[in-house]
Amino acid sequence: MSPFERAEYERRVEATKERMYEKGIETLFLADPANMNYLTGYDGWSFYVHQGVIVSLELDQPVWIGREMDKNGARATVWIDGENVHSYGDDHVHSPVGKHPMDAVAALLSDLGLDGSTIGVEMDASYYTARSHERLTDHLPNAAFVDATLLVGWVRSVKSEAELRYMRQAAELSERAMRAGIDAIGAGVPESEVAAEIYHTLIAGTDEFGGDYPSIVPLMPSGEHTGTPHLTWSDEPFSEGDPVIIELSGCRHRYHSPLARTAVIGEPSEEMQRVADVVVEGLEAAIGEAKPGVTCEAVERAWRETIAEHGIEKESRIGYSMGLGYPPDWGEHTASLRPQDETVLEEDMTFHVIPGIWFDEFGVEISETIHVGKSGAEALASFPRELFSV
Amino acid sequence: MSPFERAEYERRVEATKERMYEKGIETLFLADPANMNYLTGYDGWSFYVHQGVIVSLELDQPVWIGREMDKNGARATVWIDGENVHSYGDDHVHSPVGKHPMDAVAALLSDLGLDGSTIGVEMDASYYTARSHERLTDHLPNAAFVDATLLVGWVRSVKSEAELRYMRQAAELSERAMRAGIDAIGAGVPESEVAAEIYHTLIAGTDEFGGDYPSIVPLMPSGEHTGTPHLTWSDEPFSEGDPVIIELSGCRHRYHSPLARTAVIGEPSEEMQRVADVVVEGLEAAIGEAKPGVTCEAVERAWRETIAEHGIEKESRIGYSMGLGYPPDWGEHTASLRPQDETVLEEDMTFHVIPGIWFDEFGVEISETIHVGKSGAEALASFPRELFSV
Repeated sequence: MSPFERAEYERRVEATKERMYEKGIETLFLADPANMNYLTGYDGWSFYVHQGVIVSLELDQPVWIGREMDKNGARATVWIDGENVHSYGDDHVHSPVGKHPMDAVAALLSDLGLDGSTIGVEMDASYYTARSHERLTDHLPNAAFVDATLLVGWVRSVKSEAELRYMRQAAELSERAMRAGIDAIGAGVPESEVAAEIYHTLIAGTDEFGGDYPSIVPLMPSGEHTGTPHLTWSDEPFSEGDPVIIELSGCRHRYHSPLARTAVIGEPSEEMQRVADVVVEGLEAAIGEAKPGVTCEAVERAWRETIAEHGIEKESRIGYSMGLGYPPDWGEHTASLRPQDETVLEEDMTFHVIPGIWFDEFGVEISETIHVGKSGAEALASFPRELFSV
Repeated sequence: MSPFERAEYERRVEATKERMYEKGIETLFLADPANMNYLTGYDGWSFYVHQGVIVSLELDQPVWIGREMDKNGARATVWIDGENVHSYGDDHVHSPVGKHPMDAVAALLSDLGLDGSTIGVEMDASYYTARSHERLTDHLPNAAFVDATLLVGWVRSVKSEAELRYMRQAAELSERAMRAGIDAIGAGVPESEVAAEIYHTLIAGTDEFGGDYPSIVPLMPSGEHTGTPHLTWSDEPFSEGDPVIIELSGCRHRYHSPLARTAVIGEPSEEMQRVADVVVEGLEAAIGEAKPGVTCEAVERAWRETIAEHGIEKESRIGYSMGLGYPPDWGEHTASLRPQDETVLEEDMTFHVIPGIWFDEFGVEISETIHVGKSGAEALASFPRELFSV
């Protein structure tokens, strides 16, 4: 079932261990489901209970630990040997008597002889809770705990050919879903109906492959709500004259390729058309700047200087490194395209470049997911960069 | 836009404050998006960055804090006054220079004069990370921190009439989507195509209302994978003879009503039919036992003793309190239907009762979401309780 060759997983583990070694981390405990998947292949909707992957400089393979009922799911999806798949009993889940899954994780770390090591944990990962950390540190007084939140994220930032293939497939799903969404929008059509069409297209996929669930639901703020980027759909109908921003992503084997476009129901005003033209020009300036050796902040600067020529000032994050992900996010939380981010672009990094300009009455957002190639960046999707009138 | 009357939110805040008072908690910081929604109405896909709601015994209204770009979304969805909506700058998000949203939360707590109080935090909530807790406690050395993970969850466990109305609507979506899923399944049909049909039905909704995104994606383990309950769909086709378990939930204003059924592609074996009959009998025994004054463990016992009469032994959790939720979960993490859980059922509690029996070659799962009424429990959905042959 595995979407990657075993050798690819082994290379990922090796690269992770190199970073651990550099940072003096002997053991890594990963709770981020994207990092768990990246190193072991594990893929299940079980991250609402505690689980994790252990990487040790002393062990050949990573070790998976999760809930007893998810052990079969792990065995069905991971490349590691069965002896490296461990579980805890269901009595640790939302226990009325104070048991916690981290009790079992700590016991496993002790069994593996890692309880006196320097352990890196993901202090700021969504599913590594304050309680998880408290339990782990209480149980392992001889370990030294250090923060390793983005350690695997930085390994993930450079993509392999196989990963890029899935991101291109995700881009194909994004193109189709964007077309379905734009075609479905109209005055009087409930937002939920458009969301339903988009979802159907994202998941049914093409004749060659189907789609996974995206890590973020399709977002489509409209009218005055174009300034509320993260509100989800309602069942209210769209209105004539509404601007609508659609942000969505196809997903293939957990790899994303997000895409945003702006449409208007009816004829766009001259002002809105002008702003859309500026966004496209700025987006293309940013993509044109992106190449190996250039910094993230330089890419953002290309956008900012371009829109400034049109009298628009806006200093903000216009993109971020991304790819593999689980809810709530497809971002890697590492490099951002913004001032002060001095990360140097490398070949085969991927970014969602999502600039936008908002005014009180409307906003325009037009984005691309880009792949940084040897001599420049290319957009993974092929979809007209324009303001759509529907 | 608010789906509830202001008075209902005020009652929820009052009930929360009563529990705080009983436990000696003066201030509550909530990071669980379901709890944030429950007390303020806030509804946005922004929980991939840190945010929260503060409840203080000294303040009339809760206080919302989140990312600057989500402030408009908060203003559009909350009932609280604008002066109680606060935000932090985007430079706190995945900061390359060490800023963290909890720096702003701590500053706000100080501004509100709550930095010397006893503060309850949700130690084990997804999205309240180890780093969040570390920052908050570092910044507020005069505060006393205590665990309040389930405080609001227990308030949520008893539903109002308005909440039950949304759960019934969610049940209607679940019925339709289950029918669409069963109708779509067949030998040679890719799993992703069935998932696409289910999603379309869940979200497009009825003539009267549309559906929200559910907190958990539709799950449909098939064939030998019926023993891997949390693997999501692939684009592999179903095969003749496969058993398929479908677990899904409609969602309405973030309220769920999950439903599981088992189907078999072709004729069920006698063994499979027998097991399905036992599951239905046990499920109905559990539902029959559920009424105010009975304990959670007694409900599970009714299931266990019923299946034991058929020679099947299985001791496990067969259900949990649920309703309002955001990814990754629709459960409330409070009461469970299992041995040792002595929670006494109260009128207007709601549970997902999801018993199942698994063997090596197949599993059968049949579930209902129930409402505990004055004299007994009723299922919210109306869908045949049987093994489906497709």
